[in-house]
Amino acid sequence: MTRFNDFRIELNNYMKKHCESRRDILNTAISDLINGGGKRLRPIMINIAASFGNYNKDKIIQLASGIELLHMATLVHDDIIDEGKLRRGRETAQHRFGKNIAVFVGDYLLAKSYILFSNNLSRKGLNSLNKTVRLICEGEIAQFQEKYNYHVTVRDYLKRIRRKTALLFGLSTYLGAYESGLRDNLLHHLYNFGLELGMSFQIQDDLLDFTGDEEKTGKKVGQDMAAGIYTLPVICLLEDGNYQKKAWQLLRQGDFTEGDIKQITKMVKESDSLNRSKTMGERFLTRAIKHLKSLPAGKPRDDLYYIIDWQSSREK
Amino acid sequence: MTRFNDFRIELNNYMKKHCESRRDILNTAISDLINGGGKRLRPIMINIAASFGNYNKDKIIQLASGIELLHMATLVHDDIIDEGKLRRGRETAQHRFGKNIAVFVGDYLLAKSYILFSNNLSRKGLNSLNKTVRLICEGEIAQFQEKYNYHVTVRDYLKRIRRKTALLFGLSTYLGAYESGLRDNLLHHLYNFGLELGMSFQIQDDLLDFTGDEEKTGKKVGQDMAAGIYTLPVICLLEDGNYQKKAWQLLRQGDFTEGDIKQITKMVKESDSLNRSKTMGERFLTRAIKHLKSLPAGKPRDDLYYIIDWQSSREK
Repeated sequence: MTRFNDFRIELNNYMKKHCESRRDILNTAISDLINGGGKRLRPIMINIAASFGNYNKDKIIQLASGIELLHMATLVHDDIIDEGKLRRGRETAQHRFGKNIAVFVGDYLLAKSYILFSNNLSRKGLNSLNKTVRLICEGEIAQFQEKYNYHVTVRDYLKRIRRKTALLFGLSTYLGAYESGLRDNLLHHLYNFGLELGMSFQIQDDLLDFTGDEEKTGKKVGQDMAAGIYTLPVICLLEDGNYQKKAWQLLRQGDFTEGDIKQITKMVKESDSLNRSKTMGERFLTRAIKHLKSLPAGKPRDDLYYIIDWQSSREK
Repeated sequence: MTRFNDFRIELNNYMKKHCESRRDILNTAISDLINGGGKRLRPIMINIAASFGNYNKDKIIQLASGIELLHMATLVHDDIIDEGKLRRGRETAQHRFGKNIAVFVGDYLLAKSYILFSNNLSRKGLNSLNKTVRLICEGEIAQFQEKYNYHVTVRDYLKRIRRKTALLFGLSTYLGAYESGLRDNLLHHLYNFGLELGMSFQIQDDLLDFTGDEEKTGKKVGQDMAAGIYTLPVICLLEDGNYQKKAWQLLRQGDFTEGDIKQITKMVKESDSLNRSKTMGERFLTRAIKHLKSLPAGKPRDDLYYIIDWQSSREK
């Protein structure tokens, strides 16, 4: 993703400036988050979508910052729920400052993102944003309630990641496009491109949870499973007649040992689960590409193709 | 506050309808909050402030619901921090559903309140709202960082309650007034009335923490102190030459027994602390009344006088 380095630097600077507070702990927590890496995929997608229309740089850097700050807020609150210790290879806010401070770091980020949205979005844009945030919250609660449920289906999973990830990807391309004057067909294809890419992105993330190099992903293998969040590879295993019984037995106990995690990971790798998951991820990527084909050729579209290439081969 | 019962019923109904979700746990948590009582002072103040201008009922009930939902969101997140078990005499969300769910119940309430704000506020209104929310977040973090600090001064305290309570009171009268077309002098006096009333309200709340009847307040005597939050009566004690040393000795240890709490409560009651706190609260109330005098006579102003009367004698 080196192609977007300049934009990323500009974005990080803007976010830092915008979030400055008289509370040192906030500044530290937010610097941690901003310097902690991250691909900035959502802001990049706003930026590219906007380039299809009447591009207003000032407005777009603010909207892009808003989306990333909103995303960071959800990460901070997520880590509270998951008791996550590492995020992008760094200590999480909840682990460093405690759950209590983390609640308000998340709220502060939300407030700061809404300032940018209020200043730059149309009414319709604000409404789409609010609807998305509401659905994300409901999704988080659903995910929490589905924890350790080994009857979860592929359909449940797809519904969950749609709210957890894809909607914010879709919102990014939608807002970039809509606020730059795009309507009808162009808006439709950009929005749906975002949604489908988001689905494939989350599936890839969940695959990397099993196949990834811990050094690269900054995440322990099987971390989600250990927290009771069963993602596509595990769900495929649970649907596989050859492994189902054994997997149920292990997952039924709930409180996993390192050994349990290793055993399930081994089964996931031996079975067809990774392949099936990969195929499903590719299906969403194909749909995303279909939407690209309906967009006018040129640099913005090339940028989106670049993201597709990167997504299909990324290792972190 | 029976005077406003009709409005309160209408408001509760609107909030319930607006917050309905497909997630049962959300519905339960939010019903708990709405049925859990509460004076609805902020919505009432929006409503009255709006009656000084071009009153639009539909808009005002939505804004009033927005402010109350925002307030509830801060309560839910507050209870996580304070590990509060009871609020208004009822079990808190964090205690009933766990901290994890409570984080997202708060986020959901925030999202639902922002939907109402986006639909009904002018740009200027939205900006005032966002600024207030940011300051409230900073205030919460400040309060958390000041915990167990027995060097806290009256000035720190006043700064803290301004952000914790008064700003949202001020925002309520401001939004009611501004969005009903009021400007200049009227807007100024209504806004400042809200701020000053908010200050006196919080001081009274903190007094009731010591003098109140647990049955009526639904709160254990000395609950804030037990959590390391030193409010005005304790701070007055810490500044009182006759008690300072003894109070320091007790507060220095940090982890209080029931006996410590009782001893400090006793000292607070014996000393001049409650009187001093009361006088300070009355000073803010007097300032609030001063702003009332600059408003046109009539039912809306009578309503505000009614709130002043109620506030100066309330026991819960």
